[in-house]
Amino acid sequence: AQQASYSGSGRRVMIVGGDGYCGWATALHLSARGYAVSIVDNLCRRTFDLQLGLDTLTPIAPIHTRVKRWGQVAGRDIDLRIGDICDFEFLSEAVQAFRPDAVVHFGEQRSAPYSMIDRARAVFTQHNNVIGTLNVLFAIKEFAPDCHLVKLGTMGEYGTPNIDIEEGYITITHNGRTDTLPYPKQGGSFYHLSKVHDSANILFASRAWKVAATDLNQGVVYGVATEETMADPLLINRYDYDGVFGTALNRFVVQAAVGHPLTVYGKGGQTRGYLDIRDTVRCIQIAIDNPAAKGEFRVFNQFTEQFSVNELAAIVQQQGAKAGLDVQVKSVPNPRVEAEDHYYNAKHTRLMELGLQPHLLSDNLIDSLLKFALQYKDRINTDLIKPAVDWRKTPVSSGTMQAAVAGKH
Amino acid sequence: AQQASYSGSGRRVMIVGGDGYCGWATALHLSARGYAVSIVDNLCRRTFDLQLGLDTLTPIAPIHTRVKRWGQVAGRDIDLRIGDICDFEFLSEAVQAFRPDAVVHFGEQRSAPYSMIDRARAVFTQHNNVIGTLNVLFAIKEFAPDCHLVKLGTMGEYGTPNIDIEEGYITITHNGRTDTLPYPKQGGSFYHLSKVHDSANILFASRAWKVAATDLNQGVVYGVATEETMADPLLINRYDYDGVFGTALNRFVVQAAVGHPLTVYGKGGQTRGYLDIRDTVRCIQIAIDNPAAKGEFRVFNQFTEQFSVNELAAIVQQQGAKAGLDVQVKSVPNPRVEAEDHYYNAKHTRLMELGLQPHLLSDNLIDSLLKFALQYKDRINTDLIKPAVDWRKTPVSSGTMQAAVAGKH
Ligand SMILES: NC(=O)c1ccc[n+]([C@@H]2O[C@H](COP(=O)([O-])OP(=O)(O)OC[C@H]3O[C@@H](n4cnc5c(N)ncnc54)[C@H](O)[C@@H]3O)[C@@H](O)[C@H]2O)c1
Ligand SMILES: NC(=O)c1ccc[n+]([C@@H]2O[C@H](COP(=O)([O-])OP(=O)(O)OC[C@H]3O[C@@H](n4cnc5c(N)ncnc54)[C@H](O)[C@@H]3O)[C@@H](O)[C@H]2O)c1
Repeated sequence: AQQASYSGSGRRVMIVGGDGYCGWATALHLSARGYAVSIVDNLCRRTFDLQLGLDTLTPIAPIHTRVKRWGQVAGRDIDLRIGDICDFEFLSEAVQAFRPDAVVHFGEQRSAPYSMIDRARAVFTQHNNVIGTLNVLFAIKEFAPDCHLVKLGTMGEYGTPNIDIEEGYITITHNGRTDTLPYPKQGGSFYHLSKVHDSANILFASRAWKVAATDLNQGVVYGVATEETMADPLLINRYDYDGVFGTALNRFVVQAAVGHPLTVYGKGGQTRGYLDIRDTVRCIQIAIDNPAAKGEFRVFNQFTEQFSVNELAAIVQQQGAKAGLDVQVKSVPNPRVEAEDHYYNAKHTRLMELGLQPHLLSDNLIDSLLKFALQYKDRINTDLIKPAVDWRKTPVSSGTMQAAVAGKH
Repeated sequence: AQQASYSGSGRRVMIVGGDGYCGWATALHLSARGYAVSIVDNLCRRTFDLQLGLDTLTPIAPIHTRVKRWGQVAGRDIDLRIGDICDFEFLSEAVQAFRPDAVVHFGEQRSAPYSMIDRARAVFTQHNNVIGTLNVLFAIKEFAPDCHLVKLGTMGEYGTPNIDIEEGYITITHNGRTDTLPYPKQGGSFYHLSKVHDSANILFASRAWKVAATDLNQGVVYGVATEETMADPLLINRYDYDGVFGTALNRFVVQAAVGHPLTVYGKGGQTRGYLDIRDTVRCIQIAIDNPAAKGEFRVFNQFTEQFSVNELAAIVQQQGAKAGLDVQVKSVPNPRVEAEDHYYNAKHTRLMELGLQPHLLSDNLIDSLLKFALQYKDRINTDLIKPAVDWRKTPVSSGTMQAAVAGKH
C-alpha cells in the first residue's frame, strides 16, 4: 500500500464535494498526509438518494460523525463547511476564512442518468455545475489568486470520436496551417455537457485572469476501500449500485453477488477508461504537488485502464467464479443514446509521468468491490438496479423513480 | 431592394427575442412575406439599458406600440407574448398555443462586455442563455417535435485559431485515423462561452431526440434600416453605440459624426466577420425555407465580409470624408483579453449556396449607419462610448456604469 508521505505539510486544500464518493476518500488521504483540509459540501448528493428512494450499499455515517471520528482516529481535524457553492456569499466566506493553496472541485451533480430524468433535473444539473464552477473561479480570482484549481472533469466529455483521444488539446494541421486547440467535445448527456461547459469556462478564466488550473478528465472510478476510509466503520465510503448513480461495474458486482444475470446495455462494446479509488486519491495528490502555472489550463486524462462493458462483464464472471459464484450475462435494451461498437483509444500518460502507480482491475475486483457486495448483501434492493432513465424520453413533467417503490406491492 | 416573396404562406414562425435588434427586423421581414409570426420576449434588453443608464441612438417605440403600428401599416397581425423563456411554464404555453413550424431563437443576453461587468452579470448571462436554450429544446421535443430550431450563435464561439475556421465541423486526420468532429471552440467572454455551451447542448438534443436544428454562427451585424423597419417612424430599429452594447463599427460611426477620434482597442488587428442587418433577415428566411432534417445539427457561418478593426476605421474615415467629415483615429488600451494581430480566415459559403446576396459594407456604410448618426446627433452621449468593462477585472461586487452618470458634474 501507498505509504503516507508528509508532502502536504502546511499546504491548505479545500475539497468542494468532500462528502461525496471521491471527495471523502481524497479528504482523508490528504489529511493523513499532513495537508490542512477543509470540506465544503451542501449534501445534495444525500438529498438525491432521499428523494429518489435510493441508498448506498455500504452504510455511510453522517458527515459530522465522519469528520469527528476521523479526528479521533487520526488525530487530525478537518474543517467542515456545509453550504452551496452556487451561493456566492457562502463560498466567498469559506475561501476567505480558509485561505486555500489548492481547491479540489468535486462538488457537482455527477450522474448522467440523473441529468436525464426530467427537464427540471437536466436544468438543475447544468445550473448547479456551471454556476458553481463559475463561482469557484470568481472566488479564486478575487480572494485567492495564487490558488491552484484542481477541477474534476470526465472522460465522457470527449464522447467516442473515431480518432485517438488526447489529453485536453489536439494539434490540427488544416489547409497547410497548424494550431493546437482544445480537443473537440461531444458530451452524451446533460451531465457530461455540464463538464464540457466547465472546461471551456475554466480555459477562459485561466487566460483572462491567469488562474492556475488543472482539469482532470476522470474515467469511471470503482472500489470502496482506501487505507483511510477502512480505518474505522464510521469512515466507510459509499457504494452506489442503483440505475441512476451506480456505474455498470458496480451494478454487475452487486448482480453477481445476488445471482442475477449481469445486465449489459445493448451490444456492450461501449468502451471507457476506469480507475481504482485508491488511484483517484493519488492522482489528486499528484496534481496538487505539481501545480499548474498561473494562467495555465492543464488537462490530464485520469484513468488507468480501458474496458468495454463486455470486458467488464467477463472480468466479473471470471473473478466471481474464484469467489464461487456462477455469473450469467444478458443484454438489455440500451436506455442511453450512445455508440455500442466504436473505436476508443484515449491517452493517459501525464499522470503516470508524474508518478502514478496504477492498481489494476482484474487483480483487485474482489477486494475492491465483490467482498463488499457479499458483506452487505442483505441491503441490496435488486429493483434499484434496473435501467431507470431513458435518454430518448426525458419528460418535461417531473419524473419519479418508480423502481424505488416497486416490490412493495 | 429585396422584393417580398410570399414563400411564407401558412408557415408559423416563433421569434424568441423578437423585440431585439435582429429579432424585430426579422419578425417584420417574415411577417411582410406571409409567415405567421409570434414574438416572444421578456424585454430584459430594454431593462439592461434602464439599469445601466444607456439608450439606443434611434428612439425606439415600446413593443406593444410597434406591433400595433405594424398591424396598421402592413395589415398583418403579429402575435405578442411577453415572458421569460427561462420560465418553462410560460414557454410551454406559448409553444402549445402558437404551434410553430420554426422557432428562431434570438432571445439571449448578447453583449460580451455586459457578461464581463461583474460576477452577477456573468452568472446571469450563462444562466439566461444556457437554461433558456435548454427550455426551448425541451419545449420543441415535447410540444412541437417536427419544429425546426433556428438558433443564433456567434462567430465568436470559434475564437481566433491559427487555422481556417470551418462551418461548425472539421475533418481531422490524426495518427492515421479520420473523423469529422465539432470545430474546437474558444469563447473569449462569458457571453461567447454561453453560445459555445448552447451549441454543444443543441448538438446533443439533435442526436438524442432527433430535433432539427440550425445553428447560425453570426458575425457582427450593422445597419439600422430594413425595408420594413423604415416603413414608419414607430417601427425604427435600435442603434447601440455605448461601450457595453455598441459594436466597434457602431461606435466609430457615432464618433465620426461628433468629431471624436475613432477609438481602436490596442493594435486593431482584431478581425471578425460582419454583415448588414438586411442580410441577417434574409439568412433567417433562407434557413427557415431550407430546414435542417430531423436529427440534423446544421451549422452555417452567417456573415458576408471579414474586416480588422483597423480596416473598419479606414472605411469609416473614407466614407466619412465623402460626407464631409474629417475623421481621426487613435488607439486606446484594449479592455479585452484577445489577440490583436492574428490569422483569420472563416468559411461562409453555405448560406451563399442557398441564395444569399450580400450587401457590402463600403457601399452601404453611409446609408446603413452614418446618416442615422448624423440625424440623431443630438441624442449622442459621448461619455457612453468609452470602454466600460475591463476583462481582467470583472469584480465580484456589483458593477455600475459610472460612464452613464459622468458629465453630470
Ligand atoms: N465517481 C466517478 O466515477 C466519477 C468519474 C468521473 C468524474 N467524476 C467527477 O468527480 C467528482 C466527484 O464525483 P463523486 O462520484 O465523488 O460524486 P458524489 O456525488 O459522490 O460527490 C459530489 C459531492 O458534491 C456535493 N455537491 C454537489 N453540488 C454541490 C454544490 N452546489 N455545493 C456544494 N456541494 C455540492 C454533493 O453533495 C456530493 O457530496 C464529480 O465532479 C464527478 O463528476 C466522478
Ligand atoms: N447583434 C449582433 O451583432 C449579433 C452578432 C452575433 C450574434 N448575435 C446573436 O443574435 C441574437 C440577437 O441579437 P440582438 O443583437 O438582436 O440582441 P438584442 O439584445 O437586441 O435582442 C435579444 C432579445 O432577446 C430578449 N431576451 C433575452 N433573454 C430573454 C429571455 N430569457 N426570455 C425572453 N426574451 C429574452 C431581449 O429582451 C432582447 O429583446 C442574440 O442571440 C445574439 O447573441 C447578434
